[in-house]
Amino acid sequence: MQDRGKFITLEGGEGVGKSTNLNFVMEWLNGHNIEFVHTREPGGTPLAEQLRELLLQKRDEPVDPTAELLMVFAARAQHLSQVITPALDAGKWVLCDRFTDATYAYQGGGRGLDVDLIAQLEQTVQGDLRPDCVLLLDLDPETGLKRAANTGEADRFESEQIAFFHKVREAYRRRAHADPERYAVIDASRSLQAVQAQLAGVLEQLVGNR
Amino acid sequence: MQDRGKFITLEGGEGVGKSTNLNFVMEWLNGHNIEFVHTREPGGTPLAEQLRELLLQKRDEPVDPTAELLMVFAARAQHLSQVITPALDAGKWVLCDRFTDATYAYQGGGRGLDVDLIAQLEQTVQGDLRPDCVLLLDLDPETGLKRAANTGEADRFESEQIAFFHKVREAYRRRAHADPERYAVIDASRSLQAVQAQLAGVLEQLVGNR
Repeated sequence: MQDRGKFITLEGGEGVGKSTNLNFVMEWLNGHNIEFVHTREPGGTPLAEQLRELLLQKRDEPVDPTAELLMVFAARAQHLSQVITPALDAGKWVLCDRFTDATYAYQGGGRGLDVDLIAQLEQTVQGDLRPDCVLLLDLDPETGLKRAANTGEADRFESEQIAFFHKVREAYRRRAHADPERYAVIDASRSLQAVQAQLAGVLEQLVGNR
Repeated sequence: MQDRGKFITLEGGEGVGKSTNLNFVMEWLNGHNIEFVHTREPGGTPLAEQLRELLLQKRDEPVDPTAELLMVFAARAQHLSQVITPALDAGKWVLCDRFTDATYAYQGGGRGLDVDLIAQLEQTVQGDLRPDCVLLLDLDPETGLKRAANTGEADRFESEQIAFFHKVREAYRRRAHADPERYAVIDASRSLQAVQAQLAGVLEQLVGNR
């Protein structure tokens, strides 16, 4: 029987260097001849990308937090059924730019939605599937937002106030500290070299566990 | 204190005459000087209408049934928070073209999704809010589809097979029979005059209960 692939997610707030480090992880996987699918959330299928657009658009209409949460999980259900689950079943690794930890961080921490409701939707949509490894790029939001400020117009989430991003960071850290086996907290304030050395170490270990 | 408005929904499968009878109900309410909001699901706000579009679009990508269900409830959460609840709180009546009974019928009956999951999402999104009166236009799907065939290109739901519409009808009827106080089953195969006499009777009674 085909071994199931590993499911890696990359998480973090604004300006933590997600794109740069995502590229590093991809190069590392390629360098180790690991077949993988690179995808993102919300998104990853045509329908899920349309939902992403609706989620990110700035709009005059206030968005109900529960509506936002359900849209996120709708996109996730579609993404899982069309992309993630088939890839893992085929023995490929999946590298996903944000996943359910972002929901706990942004909708749970940021918006203050009930964590039990998020957990219930997680179970409904994912069953027992959880990432094998969450790479959490952790950075003080003030520093992150300064870095992110250079990269184009802010979307509906990026336009939130600083207090929102502090709550997002705290929610991410709480989840990581509750399950240190599955989460690697990476101090994104350090040099790129130091960050990537740590990433490589985590990936080595993950390959060892195959 | 302001009396809360009544919440009326109009339900039924394809080609049952929903538009014609919706107009009749609106005229009746106007004729009785009842202030009301007329709206529809999925939809009723700019964001919810965008979700409607994503739901109805025919697409190459197979749509995961749970994703579909969550999109429906996302649109509903937005619609409730922006339109329905404020209107009812202000003492207005709300007349809604389809609501959660359609979810039980189409996603539950038609797609075969777990009714407990639908009930759980209903409770999450609506709390205790339920329609005061559901007007269910009931018609054999063969007859309905023949009538509907004349009205433009079929959307993603209208393109389903006949077995789907039989399951939709059965689910609607089961819900109506389980709660005859709140549901009025209207035999839509009768003459328009007979249908509208029955509708008027139901509305008279609803006004009497104010």
